[in-house]
Amino acid sequence: MLGSEALIQSLVDSDVDVCFMNPGTSEMHFVNALDAVPQMRSVLCLFEGVATGAADGYSRMAGKPAAVLLHLGPGLGNGLANMHNAKRAKSPMVVIVGGHATYHNRYDAPLQSDIEGIARTMSAWVHTSGHQRDIGNDAAQAVAVARSTPGKIATLVLPADVSWSEGGVVAPRREPAPALTVDKAVIEAAAAILTGGSKTVLLIGGAAMRERGMLAAARIAKATGATVLATGSNRSERGAGLPVFSRVAYLGEQAVAQMAGTQNLILAGAKSPVTFFAYPGVASDVAGDSCEVSVLADDEQDIEAALEALADQVAAGVEATVTEAALPPSPTGELTPRSMADAIAVTLPANAIVVEEAVTSGAFIGSALAGAPRHDVLPVMGGAIGGGMPTAVGAAVAAPDRPVISLQADGSAMYTIQSLWTQARENLNITTVLMNNQSYAILRNELTRVGAGYNPGPRALDMLDIGRPTLNFAELASGMGVPSVRVTTAEELVEALTNAAAQDGPHLVEVMLPSPE
Amino acid sequence: MLGSEALIQSLVDSDVDVCFMNPGTSEMHFVNALDAVPQMRSVLCLFEGVATGAADGYSRMAGKPAAVLLHLGPGLGNGLANMHNAKRAKSPMVVIVGGHATYHNRYDAPLQSDIEGIARTMSAWVHTSGHQRDIGNDAAQAVAVARSTPGKIATLVLPADVSWSEGGVVAPRREPAPALTVDKAVIEAAAAILTGGSKTVLLIGGAAMRERGMLAAARIAKATGATVLATGSNRSERGAGLPVFSRVAYLGEQAVAQMAGTQNLILAGAKSPVTFFAYPGVASDVAGDSCEVSVLADDEQDIEAALEALADQVAAGVEATVTEAALPPSPTGELTPRSMADAIAVTLPANAIVVEEAVTSGAFIGSALAGAPRHDVLPVMGGAIGGGMPTAVGAAVAAPDRPVISLQADGSAMYTIQSLWTQARENLNITTVLMNNQSYAILRNELTRVGAGYNPGPRALDMLDIGRPTLNFAELASGMGVPSVRVTTAEELVEALTNAAAQDGPHLVEVMLPSPE
Repeated sequence: MLGSEALIQSLVDSDVDVCFMNPGTSEMHFVNALDAVPQMRSVLCLFEGVATGAADGYSRMAGKPAAVLLHLGPGLGNGLANMHNAKRAKSPMVVIVGGHATYHNRYDAPLQSDIEGIARTMSAWVHTSGHQRDIGNDAAQAVAVARSTPGKIATLVLPADVSWSEGGVVAPRREPAPALTVDKAVIEAAAAILTGGSKTVLLIGGAAMRERGMLAAARIAKATGATVLATGSNRSERGAGLPVFSRVAYLGEQAVAQMAGTQNLILAGAKSPVTFFAYPGVASDVAGDSCEVSVLADDEQDIEAALEALADQVAAGVEATVTEAALPPSPTGELTPRSMADAIAVTLPANAIVVEEAVTSGAFIGSALAGAPRHDVLPVMGGAIGGGMPTAVGAAVAAPDRPVISLQADGSAMYTIQSLWTQARENLNITTVLMNNQSYAILRNELTRVGAGYNPGPRALDMLDIGRPTLNFAELASGMGVPSVRVTTAEELVEALTNAAAQDGPHLVEVMLPSPE
Repeated sequence: MLGSEALIQSLVDSDVDVCFMNPGTSEMHFVNALDAVPQMRSVLCLFEGVATGAADGYSRMAGKPAAVLLHLGPGLGNGLANMHNAKRAKSPMVVIVGGHATYHNRYDAPLQSDIEGIARTMSAWVHTSGHQRDIGNDAAQAVAVARSTPGKIATLVLPADVSWSEGGVVAPRREPAPALTVDKAVIEAAAAILTGGSKTVLLIGGAAMRERGMLAAARIAKATGATVLATGSNRSERGAGLPVFSRVAYLGEQAVAQMAGTQNLILAGAKSPVTFFAYPGVASDVAGDSCEVSVLADDEQDIEAALEALADQVAAGVEATVTEAALPPSPTGELTPRSMADAIAVTLPANAIVVEEAVTSGAFIGSALAGAPRHDVLPVMGGAIGGGMPTAVGAAVAAPDRPVISLQADGSAMYTIQSLWTQARENLNITTVLMNNQSYAILRNELTRVGAGYNPGPRALDMLDIGRPTLNFAELASGMGVPSVRVTTAEELVEALTNAAAQDGPHLVEVMLPSPE
């Protein structure tokens, strides 16, 4: 058996059966072996950042890693930004990077580079397979690392000769280390804080953002008077029947205001909040020195079980307060961030997956969708722009029976716009809502915030203006085979989203929003 | 003076006055300072790989580095592939990466990453400015490193607080180390080989690929009977009045055949040739063990002066043989790689810059353009796909009075397609000839070459088929504000290229080529 076949079979035997890929010459042996192991589904991407972002989105919905196949150091470089997002999302991923043949490295051919050095910056585990007899075992180990708690990125470098040589050995699936259990004493300590009368915030994130964890947190809040705040999670649930919690604000001064006066902060799947960026004269640490911080459960532990145990202790018999089903009226007239959010809410299909990279234009989406039918929310977790459209690709591959709504801004869309082609090729059920305000609007905000005395001149503002020329996303989508429409009123948007939901396959709806002043 | 202003002023004082950028929040201080130093031209790119590739192209035509401004580790990651190409092209570049404020790093905010670790994989010099009083000096040092011989990538990490704080100090320009002179004894040794009667190849590359070096090499060949072969250069000259040399073949077995029987190999600005990739049973080293290799001049030395001194010694009074002006007949009928090459030749404007990332479709371009009007050729040097379109951006910014012809294949175009928007925004005189054969054709070739017994199945071939759906590059260009036309006959292509040459600003001509079978 060829090394490449042993690799793919070992991945499949470890339950990794989807590979997002952008291969080159050094990966042709892997590609050639795809016909020998038909259980592996391969999804072609035209840019590596699409492949790594898709693997992130896939793992969030599939609950297991996908593989990614990249071409040498530069291909890995192109995939790095969405590996950063996946690392921060704690999404498991197995990255396979083709390398030159082991004996070819010393010749410093044009594509030679430090693959391991690049990989190490974003991976929890990096290994170069040295021989075809090891490649199956290395693959099983990579999957086990990726699937440990929390999810991790494992990068396996596959030299071309290891891939093309006979003598590959398939390795069996290896069980990843399970999540750790939270000590009873820790739960009792948290209970004592919550019932001790201090002003307490319970900050939840990560795995706590599913139904089980959120219901437990809501019970704790109702019984003890504690405030629940939420941070990010690679997958959270939202909609009627679930509690609603305030999010820790993106803007540092708002986050500080949320936490003001807090005496105790209890963390469950979240870190003590810090500002996203630093600003002159603003503290990075949001909680402040006078707040006692304690950890109920970190991301190596079973967070949901810990929250339920805590709720049973302090809120026995208490029911969580949840949101009623409620939709805004169907919007009419001018398209604004608010009317757009209402249009998304009133047209949201049942059981949707909502991918959020809406940046400034998405300000009203969370509240508009709070009473909508239950759905999953997949945000970009690492702050690296360009994660949303690939995440939608991966989510749709993982959950083909669920409609995916991909909320995307114009500036961020251009980093991984190639995602649309893969959406068309795989006929994925993704409706992209492309919010075109012709601006890097978030940077316009930041430019005035970062320096109190800044009065940006025309040359500075020009660097934040992406409306010269105006991008036409409807044309871009059509050029990649995705049916598209540009809308300029709320009624048109409702109609376009209704039509998209009624049809299979990808669609793009370009929402023309007012440009910020 | 703010740190950011001292940085930009120091760059300008070091003669770096163009910055290709994709900024984020941590770079807003740099952006805000652009109005204070109007000598710095800033060019906005919608993706970081466009910025780094543009800086590569700029330096080739300007003979000096541009600056690049990127956002934290993920932005640097997105720029890495074209930094690889620039590193291999020995193009000077000053990369500035915004970082979090020095005191913010320890909070592990979402965008925290190992910026220096990422940068080191592609940079000759990496430094993080620790204080605003140092930033000007650090910038001057970065430029001096970049401008040494050969050109290098210098990466300077700019923490946000260093950028926003008062106390910046402007540093004066620092002279880079000059190119080293080749010893007279080395030239005499080479002369002895050339006149010694052995079968000798003179392999030239890098700076030897301009008129001076090529004429000297042609004189040497004519006088001594040596064969001149050429390898890559980040900028070579071509056309009527210049000698034509065979290139070292991309395919290893063809390269081995070119070198067969060679007893002596003399290197001038080139390395002893190796295969681009490794293949089972094919040697990586093209020259073979029985060939003596000697170095006339390496890339730290003055290669052109060494070639001229050698020519004066072995070919005094001998004139170089050069190509006559000659164009193919204007092509008609079906569009094929050959008729397309002829169309490009007969319409080539005077004094053009030809950027080549045509991959398999470009097979006939070199010979078709050998007798065309003199032009510069800028190839992708590192083998990382996606260098061509950004290189065209940079070349056009550096040489606004010269027409740029960007020869681009469909597969490679999709890595940095965002380049078109910057071409439109800056109204650059670039005509993109987009060769659409609906395939990763080079990979189809490689798939059958890498494994002698491979008989690719449908699942393997599907990974090399980018024609499902067919990309419409005319629509993609239009969506980014670039006038475009799709042509299906040679006559239409000639007409479209003639029209594009007659008008200012960017154009894209999509050439529909037969899909390989």
